[in-house]
Amino acid sequence: MNTMDLNCDMGESFGAYTLGMDPQVMQHISSANIACGYHAGDPLVMDKTVRLAVENKVSIGAHPGYPDLLGFGRRSMALTSEEIKHSLVFQVGALMAFCRVHGARLSYVKPHGALYLDAVENKTIAMAIAQGILSLDPTLYFVALAGKKGETMRRVGEELGLRVVYEAFPDRAYTPEGTLLSRKEKGAVISDPEQVAQRALDMAHGFVEAVDGSRLALEVQTLCVHGDNPKAVDLVKTIRHTLETHNIAVKPVGASV
Amino acid sequence: MNTMDLNCDMGESFGAYTLGMDPQVMQHISSANIACGYHAGDPLVMDKTVRLAVENKVSIGAHPGYPDLLGFGRRSMALTSEEIKHSLVFQVGALMAFCRVHGARLSYVKPHGALYLDAVENKTIAMAIAQGILSLDPTLYFVALAGKKGETMRRVGEELGLRVVYEAFPDRAYTPEGTLLSRKEKGAVISDPEQVAQRALDMAHGFVEAVDGSRLALEVQTLCVHGDNPKAVDLVKTIRHTLETHNIAVKPVGASV
Amino acid sequence: MNTMDLNCDMGESFGAYTLGMDPQVMQHISSANIACGYHAGDPLVMDKTVRLAVENKVSIGAHPGYPDLLGFGRRSMALTSEEIKHSLVFQVGALMAFCRVHGARLSYVKPHGALYLDAVENKTIAMAIAQGILSLDPTLYFVALAGKKGETMRRVGEELGLRVVYEAFPDRAYTPEGTLLSRKEKGAVISDPEQVAQRALDMAHGFVEAVDGSRLALEVQTLCVHGDNPKAVDLVKTIRHTLETHNIAVKPVGASV
Amino acid sequence: MNTMDLNCDMGESFGAYTLGMDPQVMQHISSANIACGYHAGDPLVMDKTVRLAVENKVSIGAHPGYPDLLGFGRRSMALTSEEIKHSLVFQVGALMAFCRVHGARLSYVKPHGALYLDAVENKTIAMAIAQGILSLDPTLYFVALAGKKGETMRRVGEELGLRVVYEAFPDRAYTPEGTLLSRKEKGAVISDPEQVAQRALDMAHGFVEAVDGSRLALEVQTLCVHGDNPKAVDLVKTIRHTLETHNIAVKPVGASV
Repeated sequence: MNTMDLNCDMGESFGAYTLGMDPQVMQHISSANIACGYHAGDPLVMDKTVRLAVENKVSIGAHPGYPDLLGFGRRSMALTSEEIKHSLVFQVGALMAFCRVHGARLSYVKPHGALYLDAVENKTIAMAIAQGILSLDPTLYFVALAGKKGETMRRVGEELGLRVVYEAFPDRAYTPEGTLLSRKEKGAVISDPEQVAQRALDMAHGFVEAVDGSRLALEVQTLCVHGDNPKAVDLVKTIRHTLETHNIAVKPVGASV
Repeated sequence: MNTMDLNCDMGESFGAYTLGMDPQVMQHISSANIACGYHAGDPLVMDKTVRLAVENKVSIGAHPGYPDLLGFGRRSMALTSEEIKHSLVFQVGALMAFCRVHGARLSYVKPHGALYLDAVENKTIAMAIAQGILSLDPTLYFVALAGKKGETMRRVGEELGLRVVYEAFPDRAYTPEGTLLSRKEKGAVISDPEQVAQRALDMAHGFVEAVDGSRLALEVQTLCVHGDNPKAVDLVKTIRHTLETHNIAVKPVGASV
Repeated sequence: MNTMDLNCDMGESFGAYTLGMDPQVMQHISSANIACGYHAGDPLVMDKTVRLAVENKVSIGAHPGYPDLLGFGRRSMALTSEEIKHSLVFQVGALMAFCRVHGARLSYVKPHGALYLDAVENKTIAMAIAQGILSLDPTLYFVALAGKKGETMRRVGEELGLRVVYEAFPDRAYTPEGTLLSRKEKGAVISDPEQVAQRALDMAHGFVEAVDGSRLALEVQTLCVHGDNPKAVDLVKTIRHTLETHNIAVKPVGASV
Repeated sequence: MNTMDLNCDMGESFGAYTLGMDPQVMQHISSANIACGYHAGDPLVMDKTVRLAVENKVSIGAHPGYPDLLGFGRRSMALTSEEIKHSLVFQVGALMAFCRVHGARLSYVKPHGALYLDAVENKTIAMAIAQGILSLDPTLYFVALAGKKGETMRRVGEELGLRVVYEAFPDRAYTPEGTLLSRKEKGAVISDPEQVAQRALDMAHGFVEAVDGSRLALEVQTLCVHGDNPKAVDLVKTIRHTLETHNIAVKPVGASV
């Protein structure tokens, strides 16, 4: 039996501000990318979200970002490698503490927003992230972009000896070259749940259909889904149901089947 | 042979702002209270300070404070017990990560500034701090005020089963009742190095001379010294030298003699 | 014809976080208390909210708070008078700039959350707020609590020569002594729209019915309403409609009838 | 008689952190670029610095930066034009308020650090800054880089009708093409006070000697000097003395001679 991981950003609320539908979404995913207080999240939210993940037997990942709460970590910042590495250690370490409090174990690290996108484009940034993870715990999984576009990011992790997890986006269109179609292009984001679920299934089977109809090989171990609106809860459920109907177990990477 | 611990606030710089004489002071103390980014410190400073402590074989303590960089953690904030507990876990966890990176072990937690003073006055706050420590690692030492004034804070820690370390301030005057003379009073702070060193020695011998000349019993395991100016470096050296001359080894609490 | 002002907290969103129903509520109120970036709000939100107020011909007030975004300004902080005064000047000045950009004029200052409550309890804090306003623009109105409980706060403003506006809360129960019933007590908050609207009307007529049924004189110039949920929009509409039906024009303080 | 303006970054302290030698430097400069709380500065520091400028009859400029205290505004951030514009209005408005409190008038705006450098490179960013200034007060001077490299930035300001002030750096080497030699190159920063003062004099006379010895025409109205160390105070004094000895009055742009 095959398995596929479903990951979703969680714990993005902050103080009086609530974001996302964490309790609803957590029931259907297998991995929770939990914000660590730099771009979103706060100590109460981190504690609550780790507890929620534990209760739902969901794998816990740290989701470190740039130190930019106002920009929600979506704005590139010109940090040095040292700054990226140490701020990753800070954030991941803070989340590890909440895992420890709840008797859980941190499983993986997935950079957030602009930090993720910058790591895809820039080897030095990918290296700083990977080194931060390595210095803290070399058994942590490192989530990196699947496909041609993510090659640099993945290689950096693998060269350092990290266990790299290949991630794809079933609700995003892919070019025939195997990169994500820019969000500025029409059709970049697919919203029909059935269509997204079918793409998730394709990805679980090792391929994706590009915008020109061609079929591209794509090695994928985790699918990123968004859970910040009521519609998205249905989307997550539909994807999971479709995968399970086709004998794909939804499980964290590394979990025993 | 007796021992006494000398602790000092370290790692209080932030970004472009430098505070303290960490490299100089670190050579003479036995325990470093390292700021965790809430009231002072940042990831680069934390990394550098942990490394410096390791190089100088100095015991590492977390120094969590209120989330108030502008006020340097010196302003009371009306946090709930949950907020205190979880923000302590966040801060201490972040520092633990840097310890892990440098192959060191976090030894103790000492609250900073207004959080410390509030814990002395308010049992609920002391309890929130102690519970945060307990939830994260029950083997961490909890630094609390020695003497009558610190009784509530210490008891809370001991009731929870924490290993409480009794702290005194050799450069502060004590009332005949065994509490610190208010800083608003004349003579509250003693600045003559020889006099402070003598008081440190008295404290190592289990007593302190109060402002009225009476001798009070005072059980002390760690002495807090300040190291944020050139004069203070001399003070730390003088205290250490005086203690060692009188066969008091300057060592972290729990260290083998 | 009588008038009554309806004020509501506006502009409390921050970055990716949306709070409140500003566009809906702004249509029905006469005064907008706009957050200034310390406890809520950011430059984009401030710009958008000032524009919205101008479009709806709503009077603009600054709503400064403690520097505590995580606590939404609801946690007391032990600031000095100087810190309160200058941080008020900073926040109010920032909002004045957006008023200037939109050709509007700042009309009043109303402290937010814990800063407001602390000013009610503590003359020194009320004084620091009033001095900040005075130093910046002595023609700004100063919104202060109506009734016995608000006496200190109002007097401080009046002694400094500020134009003080008396504020009441139609959805809060009053004790026979004329103070707000603590939120910890049952019945402290009234949720039935018709009942709240009736109380608003009573207040416009100079009295309020206390929890024991007695009628208290209460001089009121502005009513604070909450607008952060769909139900609250109806509440604001109901209050306004009730007032207008009884020939009370809903207008900012100082507006020509 | 000719005039030249000497500007210096001021008010960069924050809370417990002191930076710079403001009281010493303020005596010798004609314009103070005052930080506005985003990359440095806080309400108390802003108040104190404006007062100090007024006492020393120094012209006051706002020195807005990216919202990055940790990075001291020296790290580029990918802000949108709207974000740059509104965050400039916020910061400049806050400083205007302190000017108002002290009966002073804000004279100019000079972007700080990475925001300045980004404006030099990127027309869109320069435009956002200039539009922010224009929207707030079209009579504010806009400080922009002199020489070939600064052409885009200056033109943007002039096209919008702003009064642009041309700024040069006497302690920086210039290429034969009229751009600043990169700090990565040897000799990029000149440290000898007499040599820097001579270059300041050259600039006041409309030219600068490039690294290859050639003489370049350079239209300059303000000279930026650094004042964050004891040596720099001497530098500022030396420059001023040299200029005055050669009948160049050190005065703010726009001041009557």
